[in-house]
Amino acid sequence: MTVNVAVLGAGRIGKVHAKAIDATDGANLVAVVDAFEEAASALAKEHDARVDTIDAIAGAEDVDAVIICTPTDMHADLIEQFARAGKAIFCEKPIDLSIERTKSCLKTVEECDAVLMLGFNRRFDPHFQAVRAAIDADRIGEVEMVQIISRDPGAPPPSYIQKSGGIFRDMTIHDFDMARFLLGEEVTTVYATASVLVDPEIGKLGDYDSAMVVLTTASGKQCSISNSRRATYGYDQRIEVHGSKGAVAAENQRPVAIEVATAEGYVRPPLHDFFMTRYTEAYAAEIAAFVYAIENNVAPHPSGEDGLKALTLAEAALKSVAERRSVGVDEI
Amino acid sequence: MTVNVAVLGAGRIGKVHAKAIDATDGANLVAVVDAFEEAASALAKEHDARVDTIDAIAGAEDVDAVIICTPTDMHADLIEQFARAGKAIFCEKPIDLSIERTKSCLKTVEECDAVLMLGFNRRFDPHFQAVRAAIDADRIGEVEMVQIISRDPGAPPPSYIQKSGGIFRDMTIHDFDMARFLLGEEVTTVYATASVLVDPEIGKLGDYDSAMVVLTTASGKQCSISNSRRATYGYDQRIEVHGSKGAVAAENQRPVAIEVATAEGYVRPPLHDFFMTRYTEAYAAEIAAFVYAIENNVAPHPSGEDGLKALTLAEAALKSVAERRSVGVDEI
Amino acid sequence: MTVNVAVLGAGRIGKVHAKAIDATDGANLVAVVDAFEEAASALAKEHDARVDTIDAIAGAEDVDAVIICTPTDMHADLIEQFARAGKAIFCEKPIDLSIERTKSCLKTVEECDAVLMLGFNRRFDPHFQAVRAAIDADRIGEVEMVQIISRDPGAPPPSYIQKSGGIFRDMTIHDFDMARFLLGEEVTTVYATASVLVDPEIGKLGDYDSAMVVLTTASGKQCSISNSRRATYGYDQRIEVHGSKGAVAAENQRPVAIEVATAEGYVRPPLHDFFMTRYTEAYAAEIAAFVYAIENNVAPHPSGEDGLKALTLAEAALKSVAERRSVGVDEI
Amino acid sequence: MTVNVAVLGAGRIGKVHAKAIDATDGANLVAVVDAFEEAASALAKEHDARVDTIDAIAGAEDVDAVIICTPTDMHADLIEQFARAGKAIFCEKPIDLSIERTKSCLKTVEECDAVLMLGFNRRFDPHFQAVRAAIDADRIGEVEMVQIISRDPGAPPPSYIQKSGGIFRDMTIHDFDMARFLLGEEVTTVYATASVLVDPEIGKLGDYDSAMVVLTTASGKQCSISNSRRATYGYDQRIEVHGSKGAVAAENQRPVAIEVATAEGYVRPPLHDFFMTRYTEAYAAEIAAFVYAIENNVAPHPSGEDGLKALTLAEAALKSVAERRSVGVDEI
Repeated sequence: MTVNVAVLGAGRIGKVHAKAIDATDGANLVAVVDAFEEAASALAKEHDARVDTIDAIAGAEDVDAVIICTPTDMHADLIEQFARAGKAIFCEKPIDLSIERTKSCLKTVEECDAVLMLGFNRRFDPHFQAVRAAIDADRIGEVEMVQIISRDPGAPPPSYIQKSGGIFRDMTIHDFDMARFLLGEEVTTVYATASVLVDPEIGKLGDYDSAMVVLTTASGKQCSISNSRRATYGYDQRIEVHGSKGAVAAENQRPVAIEVATAEGYVRPPLHDFFMTRYTEAYAAEIAAFVYAIENNVAPHPSGEDGLKALTLAEAALKSVAERRSVGVDEI
Repeated sequence: MTVNVAVLGAGRIGKVHAKAIDATDGANLVAVVDAFEEAASALAKEHDARVDTIDAIAGAEDVDAVIICTPTDMHADLIEQFARAGKAIFCEKPIDLSIERTKSCLKTVEECDAVLMLGFNRRFDPHFQAVRAAIDADRIGEVEMVQIISRDPGAPPPSYIQKSGGIFRDMTIHDFDMARFLLGEEVTTVYATASVLVDPEIGKLGDYDSAMVVLTTASGKQCSISNSRRATYGYDQRIEVHGSKGAVAAENQRPVAIEVATAEGYVRPPLHDFFMTRYTEAYAAEIAAFVYAIENNVAPHPSGEDGLKALTLAEAALKSVAERRSVGVDEI
Repeated sequence: MTVNVAVLGAGRIGKVHAKAIDATDGANLVAVVDAFEEAASALAKEHDARVDTIDAIAGAEDVDAVIICTPTDMHADLIEQFARAGKAIFCEKPIDLSIERTKSCLKTVEECDAVLMLGFNRRFDPHFQAVRAAIDADRIGEVEMVQIISRDPGAPPPSYIQKSGGIFRDMTIHDFDMARFLLGEEVTTVYATASVLVDPEIGKLGDYDSAMVVLTTASGKQCSISNSRRATYGYDQRIEVHGSKGAVAAENQRPVAIEVATAEGYVRPPLHDFFMTRYTEAYAAEIAAFVYAIENNVAPHPSGEDGLKALTLAEAALKSVAERRSVGVDEI
Repeated sequence: MTVNVAVLGAGRIGKVHAKAIDATDGANLVAVVDAFEEAASALAKEHDARVDTIDAIAGAEDVDAVIICTPTDMHADLIEQFARAGKAIFCEKPIDLSIERTKSCLKTVEECDAVLMLGFNRRFDPHFQAVRAAIDADRIGEVEMVQIISRDPGAPPPSYIQKSGGIFRDMTIHDFDMARFLLGEEVTTVYATASVLVDPEIGKLGDYDSAMVVLTTASGKQCSISNSRRATYGYDQRIEVHGSKGAVAAENQRPVAIEVATAEGYVRPPLHDFFMTRYTEAYAAEIAAFVYAIENNVAPHPSGEDGLKALTLAEAALKSVAERRSVGVDEI
């Protein structure tokens, strides 16, 4: 069986996914859509696919699945349209910035019995997967505490911030998903603190650029998340998990692993510059997993529900900052 | 000038300090006190000192300074007695488990214009000092976020827990001091969460064995502390500081630095077993700093005030756990 | 311009190169040859290429370049045939196990003014390239000493050993090339010692499985190479270069970078299992460099001459083992 | 029992050993000798010992053992004198620069049935001892290959070089001993190459500053040693041992273990500045082992024979450089 895929949105992440489809056995890129004709044409040409419209793709018999890489505010509508059209759907996070809209969208997905996978790419990073595998193999015993450090190399421009939904919905949301991936138990309370230390413009827009979050579960497990929009030394992405028998940690990744030793000391190069190079393998693996799920008729993960839960934690974090207290997830 | 010192309390930490005095040029151990005559005799003999009584030492002309290593509940009384006697005082943390008693004790110290240094030994660890030096040398710019991971290799017995004042006053207090040492700005709010994951006996005594704390300052700096009474792989003591220009971190220490590579992978030995081996150099350096302060007639650090401030943060943490909210330090 | 390429030999390394051509902009795989029809068909089909014969490819107008991945004993004849046919040639090392035959082959290449690149893939490893770049950027000053450790995870079967030309021509040859790449000055003397420690079958075939080599240059630079056909912990590939101002080293690579800490210590997973996974990026980069050289009409590196020089060092090493003395390269 | 010790030679290393005696339970420093009265007085005063003469110490009833830290050319005579005087002897390496004199000296030691320990301090480094312990515990199987990298931070002055006996007898001799310590089998052949890359003055004195050595044993084990009088990044002291089941390595040591990350990359501080700080623990441990051997009436290691064997390897290395061939140890 070949899974024929259309990519909706030919921007940076659309290109990454198009390449991943190419590299996945059993998957074939057939169509590309983008509001910018030129972007669509270029990507289509590179992958021997056609340029098409959203509606045509929804009705096309030769399209089995779509990958939604459009701006966030189109996600929910597109998910619903393609759920109704019977296509398998891979959507970049988040489904929507509003929890209500996310819920209504997921209801439609459920009613249509549609296949929906969310783009929490980090779950597919080989290093983080090895962390999860170490836990599953009982190498560290029962999980007790999780530490996540996630720092972007630099702050995005104000125009991005404005549409982003804020640091918790845009950046921390990946860490919320990772926390759930690693804790193995649902989060019940969220505490967050946030400030503006990197770029005052971000503050003017009502957002934050530096945040710490503490999550707890019913059984007393705890997770700490540390976020900043600044890391001069590269894209800082670390997790560590402590259990009753030991701990497991994933180290930072750098493009070249050399060390220069001089009178000034030992110097290693900076980390990857950002997610496109850091998570190359993860992007390929998540698309392969999506194709595998379609081929084998199994439910893909992370699911729409996973998307909703991460968004709920983001909402709780915002409320926590505002009210300076620990917020129960059931309050959201 | 030779500084003549008496050690009050000949237990584990008393022995460490006696050895440190020996190793410090210009310091001389002249007297030892302990409720257990035998312990006092053994330590005195080893260092060519006399066994004496507390009152005799307070009145002895040949004693310039005392090092208080007795049980915690004697600290405040002894500090006051020796402040009045005009001796320089080094006291193990904490001054007292009660903030009120700590304050009254410090008042006496002030009235007597006495020299008082608190035993926050970690400030004297060469690795942590190098972190502080990197900040002072402006290698990372303005400090923004601090991460402290501090995990004991195992839980203490219930008898210890009962007198300890609880995890925040006993264990986290070192991290509170380290946070203040590194943030370079006073903490204004404290959030803490705590649970019992390691030993149910600890829970029965009303204490916790696993905790996470988030501190913030007026300018928006943030500090995360992660504590556990369990670390199968040894005494886990890490700090990292992020600033506007970069970050600096102190790695964990292990007694032997070898790596064995086999088909199972690359294996390095566990960390130090606990504070006595991990902080050997720090214990020696803090006594040398105390002696230096006396010889040069300068105020020693950390001061009694530093002790009070760390204790206040512990108190705020306890309140935060109880009320599930961020607690202002000015509420304590 | 598109460079049309034929792959001669559809075995393990042929597949790697076919994939690399696909991934290289401006290159196109048009034909595949293999003595095993099935292997040729499968590879051709995967890359939309035709199955063809060697002679037809030599005469084909739509073929600009060939990649020779056949057994070693065919290399020299094929290089000569395609040099005469005016095709650009990429050939896996070595050109031939005989120095004489290598020289006559290179003479033909020169007479035909043909483009020939040798497959010393390690020069294209991003980590080793970063080492070279650090030297070029004068970060370590004048090169003085080079250390190369290169250990295979396991010994090949006797059938492979028999045709391999022995450890120096088969395995160390890569390190000889790397030494030349890093020393920046031609080697003048070779000393080698070798023994059979891993597999007695290798000894019965007159070969060795463990070897150490010391190279020197006219100005007194020195290089140490350490080889073994055994490394239980994975494919061990390290280089370090010491210069007048400092040193630079490339660390080993592993597929997943996690660390598990328990009472037994800190464990990291084994290294890559062998060259196919360790040098994935290098294989892609060398083909891209070959295509680039053709497109831009520049001489590719490593050249046929580089192949001859590495082979000469292997020959000198063999002589050194036999005569238990340092052998001048000019003796070969 | 208390072992009363005299230190002969109050220079840099004499001070280190005096301090080690102080720190060793059961050992007592009673006398100090030095040609410079002032040096002897200062050291004696610091340790409550008397200044004395060599002859007086040889005849003193209250002296059980001597530690010889004089210039090398006095070693053999002093060893003989104190062997005859019935004192236990610890002597800094080497016994003498001449193999003949070393042999005659050891003959006297044997005739007197004297206790003699050689100061190959590295055997007592906790990290190298852990390497040896890993081998003994069969964690890496049968030893096959050893790699030793040993680089001094800087070249000594010409005046030192002149009396040193040259790089192999002065510097590599420690590595020869370490090779024997790790190989677990006597060395049978030595190949060495050497050049002058660091300081031309060293060449003018007929010595070298850069050397590589390959040792082999009867069963085919191999050991590589790499030496330089230059290492801008600190005192570089690494060993790794490869066996049939795996490998074990000792990492370099640095006084502070921090890492600073900025846009320029990750920077760790340089290594220890030289042997006094790098081998502090080893110096203390070797004296403790010497005292232990006396107290328990067991033969101390490394022995005079170990000193002779390392010197023989140095001699073979010199001959190898001169004759550009592998030299059999039985030729010396």
